Amino acid sequence: MIFTVTILGSNSAIPTTRRNPSAQLVNHNERFYLIDCAEGTQIQLRKFKIKIQRISHIFISHLHGDHFFGLIGLISSMHLLGRTRELHIYGPAQLEEILQVQLKASLTELNYPMIFHPLNPGINEVIFDESNLAISTIPLDHRIPTCGFLFKEKPGKRKLIREKIKELNIPTEKLLGIKNGDDFVNDAGEEFPNDAITNDPSVPRSYAYCSDTGYNENIIPIIKEADVLYHEATFMNDMVEVARNKFHSTTIDAATIAKKAQVKKLVIGHFSTRYESYEPLLEEARTVFPETDAAFDGKVIHIENE
Amino acid sequence: MIFTVTILGSNSAIPTTRRNPSAQLVNHNERFYLIDCAEGTQIQLRKFKIKIQRISHIFISHLHGDHFFGLIGLISSMHLLGRTRELHIYGPAQLEEILQVQLKASLTELNYPMIFHPLNPGINEVIFDESNLAISTIPLDHRIPTCGFLFKEKPGKRKLIREKIKELNIPTEKLLGIKNGDDFVNDAGEEFPNDAITNDPSVPRSYAYCSDTGYNENIIPIIKEADVLYHEATFMNDMVEVARNKFHSTTIDAATIAKKAQVKKLVIGHFSTRYESYEPLLEEARTVFPETDAAFDGKVIHIENE
Repeated sequence: MIFTVTILGSNSAIPTTRRNPSAQLVNHNERFYLIDCAEGTQIQLRKFKIKIQRISHIFISHLHGDHFFGLIGLISSMHLLGRTRELHIYGPAQLEEILQVQLKASLTELNYPMIFHPLNPGINEVIFDESNLAISTIPLDHRIPTCGFLFKEKPGKRKLIREKIKELNIPTEKLLGIKNGDDFVNDAGEEFPNDAITNDPSVPRSYAYCSDTGYNENIIPIIKEADVLYHEATFMNDMVEVARNKFHSTTIDAATIAKKAQVKKLVIGHFSTRYESYEPLLEEARTVFPETDAAFDGKVIHIENE
Repeated sequence: MIFTVTILGSNSAIPTTRRNPSAQLVNHNERFYLIDCAEGTQIQLRKFKIKIQRISHIFISHLHGDHFFGLIGLISSMHLLGRTRELHIYGPAQLEEILQVQLKASLTELNYPMIFHPLNPGINEVIFDESNLAISTIPLDHRIPTCGFLFKEKPGKRKLIREKIKELNIPTEKLLGIKNGDDFVNDAGEEFPNDAITNDPSVPRSYAYCSDTGYNENIIPIIKEADVLYHEATFMNDMVEVARNKFHSTTIDAATIAKKAQVKKLVIGHFSTRYESYEPLLEEARTVFPETDAAFDGKVIHIENE
């Protein structure tokens, strides 16, 4: 089952010609979720050949412009391009007013249902819960109410061993029970334990998005052992004071959180415009947490089972 | 005196990878005026190496997203990059609320004074009046209240003929009067008529921006004999019915207005996304008005005296 994250923007604060501000596209099992939506996100989506109408859910972490100024444009383009399918938007309550005042000014009545889900960024709660995926909020420590998002697969069913099913001629109506852990008894009364006819399900995978935030150990229990943690690293360590004042993190902060939370992999991003290249930031983060990568616009992260 | 227009976006409705939606930068005498500000305009400004802090006045024609969704981002970037100099914004009254609700949500107090001037798009009036330039509104015929903008130089003073001034040893304190048309009398009582010591001032130039609008002859007296008319041509002539329904213009509409208004040059733009290239649109417009050019992102139009 596919589980990827495409980085659409890796810069903080303002767009530059080499890096756009925050936005990411999560593809989980061919369902598309957008996290944050800076100005220019729809242009990035086109650039990376992602069909905007396939996005079904959008999650906005907070109301600093570099995380949402592109949302109204994306919503409008979806409308102009004939969308009829519903769109779910999750974000701070004020976001709904911001969108509505702009739609009203242009006398736009959307062709499609836009369903707004106000978030409570201060608590860790499940905000999306479907058969194979749950998404929950991660309270972050920023200048205005902000939350990250944890994408967590649900434990799957046991995997049938095709050859055994065929060999034992197991009837179709029994298969769902077997996937759920039932043993099998044939007409002759012979018993086959479940683990003889199935394999273990895939290990559930998880992705945690944490931007923007100061160093905040409270998130550790929530993101514990995530397969991939995206954590902002706006500054290098020599600017730790600036980071503290602005409620942002340094490379060392991000790497320390990754280490303490025992995640499998860290991706840093949301780089200050002052850094031409991410190389020095990456190098510094790896001194604390070697399994670190850096985000760049267009990078695709594969969330993989071991 | 420099007078140029840089096209920052030539597409209608939505951004594409080859054309951004509407925005233009007018440079008049090294003062910078932005007309419209679609999403991505600040990125276009960077791309074309225009310093955003030099922009002093912004004019928004109407509240369709492809003309203003980039404004809040530009305003924020000006703030984040340390602007202290005032910024004047002219647009429909609702625009102020749209900006304020977004600044409030991010708890942003701008470092610089933002002075909002609500427009009355239904009438032709002077909205900016300084020593060498006046800007007035052009009421347009669109689905929501919309106006274009006419940039018109004021008649300059007479130009001193340096050699004559030197030869006749004319004292400095007389020069302003001579520029204003005074004759000169020397100590010996000899009289020199003004046209012997000055040349005619430059002919005042004008630029008219008309987007978005259906075919509308009411604008002809306002834009009469403009040096350059930018007029939208969203569609080719075979789509004239669609154009009428959407209150947009065709190539033939734009060219007909240009011809009837006896402008010196027409530039068409705001092209529908359906057109890969502007060539067929340009060709069609030239059948009616040969002095037509097509807008493209990055094009610089020089407004010149004959």
